[in-house]
Amino acid sequence: MTDVVQPLAVALGDPSGIGPEVTAKAWAARDTHALGTFFAVGDARSVEAVWDGPVERITDPAKAAKVFPEALPVIQVEDAGEITPGVPNAEGARCALASLEMALGLARSVTASGLVTCPISKVCFYEIGFTHPGQTEFVAERCGISPANAVMLLAGPSLKVVPMTTHIPMASVSETLSIELLICKARATARGLTRNFGIANPRLAFAGYNPHGGESGQIGREEIDIIMPAIEQLISEGIDATGPFAPDAMFHARARETYDVAMCIYHDQALIPLKTLHFDDGVNMTLGLPIVRTSPDHGTAFDIAGKDVAEPGAMIAAIRMAASAAQFRLLDA
Amino acid sequence: MTDVVQPLAVALGDPSGIGPEVTAKAWAARDTHALGTFFAVGDARSVEAVWDGPVERITDPAKAAKVFPEALPVIQVEDAGEITPGVPNAEGARCALASLEMALGLARSVTASGLVTCPISKVCFYEIGFTHPGQTEFVAERCGISPANAVMLLAGPSLKVVPMTTHIPMASVSETLSIELLICKARATARGLTRNFGIANPRLAFAGYNPHGGESGQIGREEIDIIMPAIEQLISEGIDATGPFAPDAMFHARARETYDVAMCIYHDQALIPLKTLHFDDGVNMTLGLPIVRTSPDHGTAFDIAGKDVAEPGAMIAAIRMAASAAQFRLLDA
Repeated sequence: MTDVVQPLAVALGDPSGIGPEVTAKAWAARDTHALGTFFAVGDARSVEAVWDGPVERITDPAKAAKVFPEALPVIQVEDAGEITPGVPNAEGARCALASLEMALGLARSVTASGLVTCPISKVCFYEIGFTHPGQTEFVAERCGISPANAVMLLAGPSLKVVPMTTHIPMASVSETLSIELLICKARATARGLTRNFGIANPRLAFAGYNPHGGESGQIGREEIDIIMPAIEQLISEGIDATGPFAPDAMFHARARETYDVAMCIYHDQALIPLKTLHFDDGVNMTLGLPIVRTSPDHGTAFDIAGKDVAEPGAMIAAIRMAASAAQFRLLDA
Repeated sequence: MTDVVQPLAVALGDPSGIGPEVTAKAWAARDTHALGTFFAVGDARSVEAVWDGPVERITDPAKAAKVFPEALPVIQVEDAGEITPGVPNAEGARCALASLEMALGLARSVTASGLVTCPISKVCFYEIGFTHPGQTEFVAERCGISPANAVMLLAGPSLKVVPMTTHIPMASVSETLSIELLICKARATARGLTRNFGIANPRLAFAGYNPHGGESGQIGREEIDIIMPAIEQLISEGIDATGPFAPDAMFHARARETYDVAMCIYHDQALIPLKTLHFDDGVNMTLGLPIVRTSPDHGTAFDIAGKDVAEPGAMIAAIRMAASAAQFRLLDA
């Protein structure tokens, strides 16, 4: 992969999670995977606590390219206090939030060509007063984008999925659904697949919501009342939208060949098949933003943090996908 | 596999679906897969319409063993009327229901060692006045078992799942859940895995309901209010129950090794991972019944009926699992 002009900014996430470790391991694998330049943003001590490779503190992203061949460049944010891998606390959460803010700002200022975010502890984020459902919604707001128009795309080697509702209670999904919501998500998805993946006419396959897709209304009416009208509208706009399909019949190998992205009604309808197939190398990309943003599709994994057993596969995939998207955007611009 | 004393009864399901074809193909593969004796119950013409192998009508299940090496034995029920593969109608649904009733009766009378059911058209079943959510609930009722104590187990080579709620609208799942429901399903599952699979101390892994398992109550409380108390009760009864786990993190290969069955909160939480992994060879087994009952985990597939392209893999697996369960029951009795 050819290097893009600007480096990527990697927010290290929770300092006691596996973010610092997989970022360092991705840097160590930079030649094997032909990774372009990136720099980390966070508390450099969180990397040094779990990894004995070279780390170099920088203050200017423009220095990253020069440092990158020899050391992991890190822009230091506020000190995370006492860092114990596997044991999150409020101070670590504040550091993670500051890292996210700074990395995001650099990506928005075009000093960085994109943003890669490591996992955070949502429990700790809520404790320090974070009010967004997740990092995605936070990033969207900071970019001036309504969460309804920001789209979480999860991608593995053989499947891309979009959960059209995300971190809300399952009991609230039905009342949250609307024709407008699905249309918004689908438009942003279609545009995003073109812009970030170079797919000229993306094929969007909509999942049903109820068992067997509702059995013609016998087991729920969301398919008839909401999903089908949304698909009809999208087709009239020239978007290749199909479905709704029985949710359990659209994720096996043959079915996956028939679409570019599965448009899913709720979080786990999307995440279960994705992680069943691609637990170790799934990437989360936010579509609909003015910037490129990806993250590895795993959590903080506090249970294995600091044990040097975290696999960097998803992080490497997230960095590669962000770099690739940044290049496609140059072509699409 | 050693033959059990009595043959299995196979209800042919919708005469215009792929049930007759996959049953015939399973018979044709009886030697390759070492299948014990079975006989079909339905309209023999539905087999003859899609398959040119040998069919022999019998009236007494005791004749099946003698016929089986040379022809597919079929017990004829009422005529299905005009049979057009791929085009279901009410008359076909009535025939399928009669086939189910007779095959079930033979299994209950111990004339057959178990029941294997082919797919039906639920739309047509509802049209002829069928009021049960599916065949499973119907079979349970005929066996005098409350649907709450009958358990749908879906099994593939690397995953077994139990959907603890089944064919109900997604919007009704939360209000349907109760501690008692989960405990009932889990007890029947634990007993069923011992009885039908010979697993002495089955490991039951409970899925959470909400995204990420609710994030300590931040995204829904069903885990705290319902699932955890149920697990505690089961543990106190000596059942190896664990969880609740984040639903999207329990179906990849390493996670699957840690349990014998995933106890799932709703239909697609169970069926999506199962069919993602085992679309062509999943088996549905009903636990908690006095009889053995399995079915291939696919639908009527009207779109390919009569085209001689239906794969019999799931049907063969269903017949093998029923025969195996009948043998384990002899040992367990």
